[in-house]
Amino acid sequence: MFKYQVLKQHRHSSARLGQITTPHGTIDTPAFMPVGTLATVKALSPEDLELCGAQVILGNTYHLYLRPGHEIIRSLGGLHRFMNWNKPILTDSGGFQVFSLNQLNKVTEEGVTFKSHIDGSTHFFSPEQAMTVQQALGADIIMTFDEPMPYPAGKTDIATSLTLSTRWARRCKAVHREETQALFGIVQGGMFKDLRAQSVKQITDIGFSGYAIGGLSVGEDIETMHDIAAYTAPLLPREKPRYLMGVGTPQDLLAASGMGIDMFDCVMPTRNARNGSLFTNQGKVNIRNNRHKADASALDPACECYTCRNYSRAYLRHLFMADEILALRLNSIHNIAFYQNLMRNIRNAIREDIPFDPAWAGLNVKENETGEG
Amino acid sequence: MFKYQVLKQHRHSSARLGQITTPHGTIDTPAFMPVGTLATVKALSPEDLELCGAQVILGNTYHLYLRPGHEIIRSLGGLHRFMNWNKPILTDSGGFQVFSLNQLNKVTEEGVTFKSHIDGSTHFFSPEQAMTVQQALGADIIMTFDEPMPYPAGKTDIATSLTLSTRWARRCKAVHREETQALFGIVQGGMFKDLRAQSVKQITDIGFSGYAIGGLSVGEDIETMHDIAAYTAPLLPREKPRYLMGVGTPQDLLAASGMGIDMFDCVMPTRNARNGSLFTNQGKVNIRNNRHKADASALDPACECYTCRNYSRAYLRHLFMADEILALRLNSIHNIAFYQNLMRNIRNAIREDIPFDPAWAGLNVKENETGEG
Repeated sequence: MFKYQVLKQHRHSSARLGQITTPHGTIDTPAFMPVGTLATVKALSPEDLELCGAQVILGNTYHLYLRPGHEIIRSLGGLHRFMNWNKPILTDSGGFQVFSLNQLNKVTEEGVTFKSHIDGSTHFFSPEQAMTVQQALGADIIMTFDEPMPYPAGKTDIATSLTLSTRWARRCKAVHREETQALFGIVQGGMFKDLRAQSVKQITDIGFSGYAIGGLSVGEDIETMHDIAAYTAPLLPREKPRYLMGVGTPQDLLAASGMGIDMFDCVMPTRNARNGSLFTNQGKVNIRNNRHKADASALDPACECYTCRNYSRAYLRHLFMADEILALRLNSIHNIAFYQNLMRNIRNAIREDIPFDPAWAGLNVKENETGEG
Repeated sequence: MFKYQVLKQHRHSSARLGQITTPHGTIDTPAFMPVGTLATVKALSPEDLELCGAQVILGNTYHLYLRPGHEIIRSLGGLHRFMNWNKPILTDSGGFQVFSLNQLNKVTEEGVTFKSHIDGSTHFFSPEQAMTVQQALGADIIMTFDEPMPYPAGKTDIATSLTLSTRWARRCKAVHREETQALFGIVQGGMFKDLRAQSVKQITDIGFSGYAIGGLSVGEDIETMHDIAAYTAPLLPREKPRYLMGVGTPQDLLAASGMGIDMFDCVMPTRNARNGSLFTNQGKVNIRNNRHKADASALDPACECYTCRNYSRAYLRHLFMADEILALRLNSIHNIAFYQNLMRNIRNAIREDIPFDPAWAGLNVKENETGEG
C-alpha cells in the first residue's frame, strides 16, 4: 500500500518533488505535517486542516497511549476514525516524549520505565510496546522506537546510545507485521558527522520504508543543525522518503527542502498562533501590537486562507486581547496555511526549476515584530 | 426596513408564528439568539452559527464599548462587518452589565457612572450615550437603556425605578434617528403584576418597534418567572415582537413561546457547552462522565449537527478531559444546534397546530447527568 516516488529533481538544489501513496491517500512532498498531539491539531477541525492544504498530520503515540489509551482508540476504529481525519497520519514512536517529559526515566536494554506526566503512574515502553501501541492507533506511517539524546552530550554517550537505538530499530522491524502501515527508521548520532554516517549505515542495513533524521533542533545553533542535516540527507537512499523530525521554522523548511528532505513536522505554527505570533509574507506579526487596533486590512494580503479572506487585523487583535477562543482557531488556520503555502511554493519551484525564494518563508521583511513566539 | 408579521396563531397555546424583516435578512419567530458578547459567539465562527440554524445573534453594548470600543467598530464598517456576520444582530443597551458587573455604580436622573470591570476606569452611560454606542455598532435591533433592579427588591424601589426607566426610554426614543435600526422598549416592574401592567402602559404609550420583558430570570423561582411572563406577554401589542430577555432553559423557551413570546437570548447553551454540559433529546449529558470513555455512539443520535454527525461521545469526552480547544467548539455547536432545533420544532408545531411536546426540550429523560451546568 505504501509507495514513494521521486517525480523530479530540482535543478538549483538537492530538493526533489515526490509523492507518497498511503492507504488514506497521497502526500505531495516536500510536505509539512501539522502536529495533532492528542488526536486533534490544537484549535482546528479536520475540515480546517484540509482547507489549509494539509495532506498529512502527525499524532503523538506517548500522549495517545496515556489519553485516551490506544486500546480505546483501537476499539473505536483507529485514530483516523476517532478524530474524523481520513487522510494520511504519521505517528511518532513515543520515544521523544518518554525521554523529554520524564526526568526520572530508567533505560535498560529492554526498554524505558517512565512516569506519566499526568498522574505519575509508572509505565514501560519497549520497541515492541511502541509498535503495539502504534498498530492500535493505525497510522499510515509509524516510527521505530529510539533513544533521543539530550543536547549537548559527549561523543561516547552518543555513540553508545546510537547502537542501542539500532538494536531497538531491529526489534521494531522484527515485530512489524501490519501490511497497511509503513515503518520508518530513525538516524541518530548527535552533532557528530562520523556517528551520523555510522547510524545511517546501520539503519539502512536493516531497511525501512522511509528514513528520519532525529536528534536535531534540540538546542544546537541553527548552523549546526543545517550542517548536520545537509551532511546526513544525501547519505540516505534516494528512493525512500526522508523526514527531518521536529523541524522547524519556515526558513528551516526552505533550507532543508533544498538538501533533499521530504517531510517535516513542528508545533511552531500552531503554538505561535496561540501566542499571537503570526507568519506573513511581510514578516512576523505580533497580533497583540497596539498598531493593529483599528487596522481594517487583512493579516496577510497575499494569503488566501479563511482568516485572511474574512477578518481584519483589528478583529484578530480584539479577539486575542479579549481571550476569545475564536482567536486561537483563526490564528492557527492562518499559520498552518502559511506553512502549507510555503511547501506548495517549494514544490512548484522544483517542478518549474525556479530557484527557492527566501520571501516564501517571510524573509523579505517589511514588518517584523517581537513576540513570545 | 424593519417589519414584524404574525403569520399564524397556535391553536393549542398563545404562541404565534411570525417573521421579522431587517436590513440583514429575516428572522423566523419564535427565535433564539445566541449571545455574542465580544463580537463572537464564544468558540464559534459565523459559519458554525449558520450551520446550527441561527438567524440572529445578540451583541453586548457594554462589552463592545469597553473592548475594542464602538468608534473602532464604526470605523471598520460596523459590528456585522467587524465579526463577519451578515445576518441580523440585536444589541442590548448595556444597562444590564453596567449594573450587574459594577458594584459601585452611581445612578442619577441623567444616567449611570460606573467603573470598567477590566481596568477600573470611570465611565458614564446615559440613555443618549447608549443610543450613540448602539448606532456606532450598527445592529438591526437596538434596545432602550433602562435600570435593571436586583432581586429581591421592595415594591417601592421597583416602582421608583420603573418610572426612571420610562423617562430614560422616552429619551432614547427622542434621540433615535437611525432609519435602519429598530428600537425596542423594555418593560420592567419586578415580580409585581400591577407594576408590570403600569410599565407596559407607559412603554407602549411611547411606542417602539418591539417590546422586551426585562428583569426576569434574575434569581426568582421558575414558577414566579413563568407567572410574570405569562401575565405580561398578552398585555403587549399583538402586532409587535415580544422579547423575553436573558431566558433561558429549553423548558423556559417552550413554555414562554406558548405564552406568545417571540424572541429569546441566553448564554446557557454556550456556557454549558464550555463546562461539558450538553443538551440532548435524551436529557442532559455531562461529557466528563466516565461512562462515555469508550462510547462510539453520537452524543445525540436524533441530532443532525456537525458534532453529532462526525464524532463519538468517546472523542468528545477525550477532547474535554484533555482541555483541547476543539472540545469547546464541538460542544458549543451541538448545544446551539439543540436550541435552534427546539425553536424549529416550536415553529413547526404552531404552523401545523400540533401541541408542544416537552420531549423537544429534552424533558423525555432517559439519561440525565449532574454537572456544573
